[in-house]
Amino acid sequence: MAPIILHEYTNSGNCYKIRLTAALLGIALDRREYDILKGETRTPGFLANVNANGRIPVLQMGDQMLPESNAASFWLADGSPLIPADRFDRADMLRWMFFEQYNHEPNIATLRFWLAFVGEDALTEAQRAAIPGKRAGGDAALAVMEKHLRDGQGYFVGDRISLADICLYAYTHVADEGGFDLGAYPAISRWIAAIKRAPGYIAITD
Amino acid sequence: MAPIILHEYTNSGNCYKIRLTAALLGIALDRREYDILKGETRTPGFLANVNANGRIPVLQMGDQMLPESNAASFWLADGSPLIPADRFDRADMLRWMFFEQYNHEPNIATLRFWLAFVGEDALTEAQRAAIPGKRAGGDAALAVMEKHLRDGQGYFVGDRISLADICLYAYTHVADEGGFDLGAYPAISRWIAAIKRAPGYIAITD
Repeated sequence: MAPIILHEYTNSGNCYKIRLTAALLGIALDRREYDILKGETRTPGFLANVNANGRIPVLQMGDQMLPESNAASFWLADGSPLIPADRFDRADMLRWMFFEQYNHEPNIATLRFWLAFVGEDALTEAQRAAIPGKRAGGDAALAVMEKHLRDGQGYFVGDRISLADICLYAYTHVADEGGFDLGAYPAISRWIAAIKRAPGYIAITD
Repeated sequence: MAPIILHEYTNSGNCYKIRLTAALLGIALDRREYDILKGETRTPGFLANVNANGRIPVLQMGDQMLPESNAASFWLADGSPLIPADRFDRADMLRWMFFEQYNHEPNIATLRFWLAFVGEDALTEAQRAAIPGKRAGGDAALAVMEKHLRDGQGYFVGDRISLADICLYAYTHVADEGGFDLGAYPAISRWIAAIKRAPGYIAITD
């Protein structure tokens, strides 16, 4: 089989989701790094050959290109225990993955990127004006997660790890870099500790 | 089997995705309407019993609740020809569904809601300031779709309809209500016409 190539930016939680999924499954990835702060995913070559949407991550299998972090994680995990066999549980896993991209990532990942990577002084006026809304949206998403974990069986879908946990973990466990206080969310903190104990776990910096 | 209940707001494209998926598959839904303009999905009863995230749609099967439009559509279509059997195609379908929730819906659906339902005069200052960014983001998403359809085989994944088409169609075909000019996107316009010819098709107003 041709090597599986990950076009990525290591610090991105979206890219880390794919690396963590592969690590938990024992799948090797051939990694290609792009510096998004220098616009390396907006070059004509990247747009023509990797992703017309100008974003990483993209998972490449031969000449097939798969953008979108949660879809790429799904491809890696398809047929594995990281995707529940039960029909409702499988859809419920996707429910949390769509929640992650709609309610969580645009708030928590964006604030982390702005505050820890771009730097507050370098933000535009429009970005600065958007901070309070993203702060409130991120805390609302964390509150939904906290309630679900507090009332549940330890993971987002039942009592075992699935892609829902991996995709939500990626930006949640570094939410402090975006100014969120995880100490206010004890069930989330217990869940983070459980993910770190998963066999094969790697850190975002690995 | 218990009836499948759709908690919804008819005008929402997110709810329409689920109705259209069900219609194409010949599945009956028991519909419950909530007026989101009156806050009916933020009441204590709704938050406690239907969705702690305060949003519609939610698909209910017995006592199982499934929020997130794309996940609910996946549950309905699981095992049907609306989800490709090929591993890459299945992940590629999800790729477009995640693109829809991240790049498309927050721009195109939000502008439609603000301009056609809330009304421009009733918008807050922050909403008004966000219009240009959402206009540019929506046109960028439509441009990615246009290129993909122009270079492809008629649908988002290969040459037949899948959930990717249904989920992208829901807000694209009414994008003019958000001030987008679909006349500038001929491949999208041909694809919209093809979706309308699908056996079992229903309109968003049905």
